[in-house]
Amino acid sequence: MIMSDDNQTVKEITPMEQDFSQWYIDTILKTEMADYSAVRGCIVFRPYGYELWENMQQLLDKRFKDTGHKNAYFPLFIPESLLQKEEEHVEGFAPEVAWVTHGGGEELTERLAVRPTSETIICSMYSKWIKSWRDLPLLINQWANVVRWEKSTRPFLRTSEFLWQEGHTAHRTEEEAEEETRRMLEVYRDFAETELAIPVITGRKTENEKFAGAAKTYCIEALMKDGKALQAGTSHNLGQHFAKVYDIQYLDTDGQLKYVWQTSWGVSTRLIGAIIMTHGDNKGLKLPPRVAPIQAVIIPIPGKDSAAVYAKAEELASRMKGKYRVELDTNDEKTPGWKFSEYEMKGVPLRIEIGPRDVKNNQVVMVRRDTGEKITVSQDVLCEKIGELLDDIQRNMYEQAKRFTEENTRTVGSFDEFKDTLENKRGFIKANWCGRTECELAIKEKTMATIRCIPFEDNEPDGKCIHCGEKATKKVIFARSY
Amino acid sequence: MIMSDDNQTVKEITPMEQDFSQWYIDTILKTEMADYSAVRGCIVFRPYGYELWENMQQLLDKRFKDTGHKNAYFPLFIPESLLQKEEEHVEGFAPEVAWVTHGGGEELTERLAVRPTSETIICSMYSKWIKSWRDLPLLINQWANVVRWEKSTRPFLRTSEFLWQEGHTAHRTEEEAEEETRRMLEVYRDFAETELAIPVITGRKTENEKFAGAAKTYCIEALMKDGKALQAGTSHNLGQHFAKVYDIQYLDTDGQLKYVWQTSWGVSTRLIGAIIMTHGDNKGLKLPPRVAPIQAVIIPIPGKDSAAVYAKAEELASRMKGKYRVELDTNDEKTPGWKFSEYEMKGVPLRIEIGPRDVKNNQVVMVRRDTGEKITVSQDVLCEKIGELLDDIQRNMYEQAKRFTEENTRTVGSFDEFKDTLENKRGFIKANWCGRTECELAIKEKTMATIRCIPFEDNEPDGKCIHCGEKATKKVIFARSY
Repeated sequence: MIMSDDNQTVKEITPMEQDFSQWYIDTILKTEMADYSAVRGCIVFRPYGYELWENMQQLLDKRFKDTGHKNAYFPLFIPESLLQKEEEHVEGFAPEVAWVTHGGGEELTERLAVRPTSETIICSMYSKWIKSWRDLPLLINQWANVVRWEKSTRPFLRTSEFLWQEGHTAHRTEEEAEEETRRMLEVYRDFAETELAIPVITGRKTENEKFAGAAKTYCIEALMKDGKALQAGTSHNLGQHFAKVYDIQYLDTDGQLKYVWQTSWGVSTRLIGAIIMTHGDNKGLKLPPRVAPIQAVIIPIPGKDSAAVYAKAEELASRMKGKYRVELDTNDEKTPGWKFSEYEMKGVPLRIEIGPRDVKNNQVVMVRRDTGEKITVSQDVLCEKIGELLDDIQRNMYEQAKRFTEENTRTVGSFDEFKDTLENKRGFIKANWCGRTECELAIKEKTMATIRCIPFEDNEPDGKCIHCGEKATKKVIFARSY
Repeated sequence: MIMSDDNQTVKEITPMEQDFSQWYIDTILKTEMADYSAVRGCIVFRPYGYELWENMQQLLDKRFKDTGHKNAYFPLFIPESLLQKEEEHVEGFAPEVAWVTHGGGEELTERLAVRPTSETIICSMYSKWIKSWRDLPLLINQWANVVRWEKSTRPFLRTSEFLWQEGHTAHRTEEEAEEETRRMLEVYRDFAETELAIPVITGRKTENEKFAGAAKTYCIEALMKDGKALQAGTSHNLGQHFAKVYDIQYLDTDGQLKYVWQTSWGVSTRLIGAIIMTHGDNKGLKLPPRVAPIQAVIIPIPGKDSAAVYAKAEELASRMKGKYRVELDTNDEKTPGWKFSEYEMKGVPLRIEIGPRDVKNNQVVMVRRDTGEKITVSQDVLCEKIGELLDDIQRNMYEQAKRFTEENTRTVGSFDEFKDTLENKRGFIKANWCGRTECELAIKEKTMATIRCIPFEDNEPDGKCIHCGEKATKKVIFARSY
C-alpha cells in the first residue's frame, strides 16, 4: 500500500502478480478512468478515460480523412426484418441483440434492434445511393455507440454498450475492396504502434474466427502483460455477400448492372483496455505521451518561499500552454509526496518538480514515469527538453512492449509442449496447423486457446499439425485471449 | 427548374413561397445533407450534413473546455426505476420513451429506457462521486445520441433519434448554479450569432414551457424565414430537485451535509435545421463560412487550353490547403454551368472560377453565394482576399438575418391585432401578459402561438394582458414555433 507522509492514502492497487484482473479493475476505478453504472454491463467513461478516447479519436479520424473517408451518422435502431436479411450475419449477432419493443407508449409493430454493428442499416442506404460506377468508391466512417448484450463484462474490454468507429466502403472491383481492407488494417497497425506504443501482429482470421458475414477478416493482435492476447482491431473484406442480399448494384461503364464489393473495419474503446494492460504496472497506469490526457504535471514543492515557487510554476505552465497538455497542481491540501504517487498512478508520462532551490538555480527536476529517472534541466530549455523526453518515453514504451511480446512469443513442436507453454508461460504460441476447423475447435475445447491469426509473416509450416499430426498448411498464432 | 446546358438536371427545389416545408425537405435531400432511413422517424446524417455538425461540435466543444468543462460518456440505457424517481421529470418524458425489454435472448427483469436526456443516470453517478465541497463544482458535458419517440417528425428539427450535447453540472451554492446556467446560455448565444450567423433572443421560459424538473429554464430563440420561431438551445437551473431525489450531498466546510445545486444545458442537431431555415433561399442552402464544410470551391473553365487551366487550378488549391476548406472540382463529365448551380445549391459561400483568360491575366473570378457579386482578383493576393471575403460573407449573413428578425418582430396592443399579425405576418410578437398559465394556454389553444420566452431585454409591461385584459406582469414574446 502506498501511503503518503500526511497520512492521506493514495488508493491501493492490487499487485498484478497477485491478481491481474483485480489490478486491472483497481487501476481503472482508482484513476477515475471509468466507473460502474446502474445499468448491468455498462460503464461510465469518466473525464480522465474519455479524454484519452478523445485524443485517440482525433488521431484516428485524421488518418481516416487522409485516406479519403468521410464521416456520417446512421440510425441507432435496425428493424428486425432488415437485420435478418443476411443469414450468417444475423446468426452471429442475434444472440447478443437488445430489442426495443415499445415506443411512445405503444407496442411497436416491428421490434427494433439496438445496433450491434451497422452493416445492415448502412447497406439499406447504399442500395439507394449507389447507382453508377461514378458513385464508387463510397468511403464512409461512423463514430457511434453500439450494444451487444454480453453475459460477463469487464470495463473497456467487454461491455454491453461501447464506443467505436465503423468504416463501411463500397467498391467497383474485388481488388479495390481487398486493397481497402488491407489499407485500413495498416492504418490500425500504424495507429496502435505509433500512437499507443502497442506492438501488434497483423494477420488473417481463420474461417471459424472471422466476422459473421465477411469473406475475409484481418486483424491486429496485441499481447497483454498477463500473457493473454487482445484483438485490437479488425478489417473485413465483405465480398459481395451483403451487396447481393441488400441489392447494391451499380451501372458499370460497359452498361452492365453489377454488385459492389464491400469492406467494413472497426476499432473500439477496448483499445483503452489494451493501453492499460500493455503498459501499466503496480503503481497504476502508464500512458503513452501521444495520447495521454496530461503529458506533464508540474508539482510545486513550496518550502519556505512558497510565493516564489508558485509564481515560477505558473510562469513555466503558461510557457508550455498550447505546446503540451500540461497540468499545474497547486492544491495545498495535498503534500508533494501524495501528488507524486497520485500522478504516477494516473500514468502521467512526465513529472516536473520545482522547489525553492530550483527557482534559485533556474532549473527544474523532471521524473520519467516509464523509467523513474530523475533529470535536472535548466528552465531555459524546458520546452525543448519536454518534447525530447516525451518522444523518448513514447519510443521506450513501444520498445519495452515489443521486447515483452517477442520474449513471450514461443514456437512449439508438440501438443504437450503447447499445453505446457500455455499453462506455465502463456503468451503467443506459434504452431503448425492442418487448416481444419475441427482441429481448431478441439484445441480450443481442450486448452481455451484460439487461433489469434494466420500471421502475414513467418506463416510457412515446417512440420505436422500439433494437434492431429497430419500435414500442416500454415504456421499460426495461438493464445488465450480477452 | 434549373437546367444545365448539357441537359443534366440540377435537382429541382420547390420555391419557399410556394411550400416552405417542401422547400426545406427538398433542400436537405437534394444537397445530400440527410436522407430518410428504414427506421420510422430516424434520418441518416450524410457526409455533407455530418461535416457541418462536426464543425459546429468543434467550435462548441472548445467553448465548453474554455469554460472549464470536461467531456464524459454515460450509458445509453436508464433503468425504469431510476428514470421514475423524479416525478415531474418522468411525467415530461415518459410519453416519448423507447423501451428495451429484451436482451441477449431473454426478457429483462426491468425495462430500460433509451435515454431521452441523461439527468437521471448522471445524477445516480454524481451521488456516488460527490462527497465533499472539494468535489465541487463538477462540470461535465456529454456528446451523445438521444431518443424521443415523436409522433410527427421532420429532418433535423424533430426526429426519434438525434445528436446533441448535454452539460450537467453540480455546485455548492444556488448563486453559483444560477451563474453557470446564465454563462452557458451566453455561450450558446455567442455560438449561434458568431459561428452560425443566427441572431437570437435570449430569455426565460414560462413555468408552463420550462424543462420537466427544472427550477428555471433559459433559452435562445431564433426566427426562421417562414416566420416561425425555433428554440435553438436551452440552459436549465435545476435547483435542488434532482439532488434531493437522487441524494447528491456534500460535506461542506462547516461540517454540514448539504444538497448540491445543479444545472443542465443542451443544443442539438436541430441547429442544422436552424441554419437551413435562417439563411437558405430558392437556390438551396446558404452556409455560414465559419462552419461550412466547403468554404470555397474552385471551378476550372477549361476552354481550349485545359492543361494550363487545370494546372493553375491545382496550384491555387494547394496554396489554400490548410488555410481554408477548399474543394477543387475537376470532374469533366459536368459543365461549369452545372457546377455553378450545384455548389450554389450546396450553399458554398465562395466560388472561384478560373479560365484561360484568367490564367493569362494572373487572376481569378470570385462569386459570393450571399450576394451573387462577382469580383476579379489577382492570384497574388488570393489567400488574403478569400479570408476577407469569407469574413464579410459571415458578417453580411448575420446582418441580413438580424434585419429579417427585427422587421418581423412586432408589438401588438390587442388580441385582435395579435391574431391578425399571426395570421397575416407571423414572426415574433411582443405583447403584454398577465403572467397566468391559464391565459398562456388559452392563447395557445386559440392561435397555436406559444410564449417563446420572457426576454431579458425590454420585458417591462406597458399595458393590460392582451388576452384577459387584466394587469400585465411582463411583456413577452409569442410565436408559432417548430
